[in-house]
Amino acid sequence: MKPIGMIHSPYQNAEDMPIQGKFRKDAEAWIELKEEYAPGLKDLHEFSHAIVIYHFHKSQREGVEGKPFLEQNKHGIFAIRSPHRPNHIGFSVVKINKIVNNCLYFSEVDMFDGTPVLDIKPYVKYFDCRDDAVSGWLEKHFLDGNPPSDVIINPTQSR
Amino acid sequence: MKPIGMIHSPYQNAEDMPIQGKFRKDAEAWIELKEEYAPGLKDLHEFSHAIVIYHFHKSQREGVEGKPFLEQNKHGIFAIRSPHRPNHIGFSVVKINKIVNNCLYFSEVDMFDGTPVLDIKPYVKYFDCRDDAVSGWLEKHFLDGNPPSDVIINPTQSR
Repeated sequence: MKPIGMIHSPYQNAEDMPIQGKFRKDAEAWIELKEEYAPGLKDLHEFSHAIVIYHFHKSQREGVEGKPFLEQNKHGIFAIRSPHRPNHIGFSVVKINKIVNNCLYFSEVDMFDGTPVLDIKPYVKYFDCRDDAVSGWLEKHFLDGNPPSDVIINPTQSR
Repeated sequence: MKPIGMIHSPYQNAEDMPIQGKFRKDAEAWIELKEEYAPGLKDLHEFSHAIVIYHFHKSQREGVEGKPFLEQNKHGIFAIRSPHRPNHIGFSVVKINKIVNNCLYFSEVDMFDGTPVLDIKPYVKYFDCRDDAVSGWLEKHFLDGNPPSDVIINPTQSR
């Protein structure tokens, strides 16, 4: 695995960052791809969203269980989205704003500045959307379909 | 990066495999996690779907452009879902059927038998679903929201 580029993000520390980019629409970031990968972005501007796969480079630990930001209960690491996981692979759906040369500008940001990027894929609603999905322990926190207001900003201890 | 487990799938070769698991509901596969990761599955059975991140281990090449299965036009590698991509990272949303010890049984399968697994995440519709997403060059192939009938089985040359 090699980084194909790096994320330039307004988030330097966890206090400022939303738990998921979708919950804070105003922030913008960009992926600066290595020059040799720039042709790989051809036609991606016709998509509204992209999947970004990256390295949780700030995580120094790895567990098989963890506490998510929303509650004090422990869950298996594969039932939460914590960065402190085997292989430290991050996954986000982001909104594409524009693509200029080797840079992809996006909103719905939940990555730290300096994050190494491993892959970018087009988000295809026909493949990737499961609007009838049941979301386990998270359901009780989204009773009206919206996140609890206190998760718009991520509490420090959660990441 | 290390494999955390392996996929046991009915698909040994590309001719039999759907282009996306969602287009063939009947097949079942399972992830056999290494024993030490079994506690990481705790509570995942309460979710209907999971995100599986894996290694496209059969791909022997890497391009910055490629032709997708649905058409003859070339697109940037980050605008298609081809396995022949930098870092060879695969991503699928799968339907969880059951979890027994260190094994996760799932349907909506589009991975080869023997695929190394890198991560499993809970699919959370509140984070991951974008039902208003625009899907670029793919839109013309899904005019009524359904895939063209000839993509239910994946043509040989496409993977």
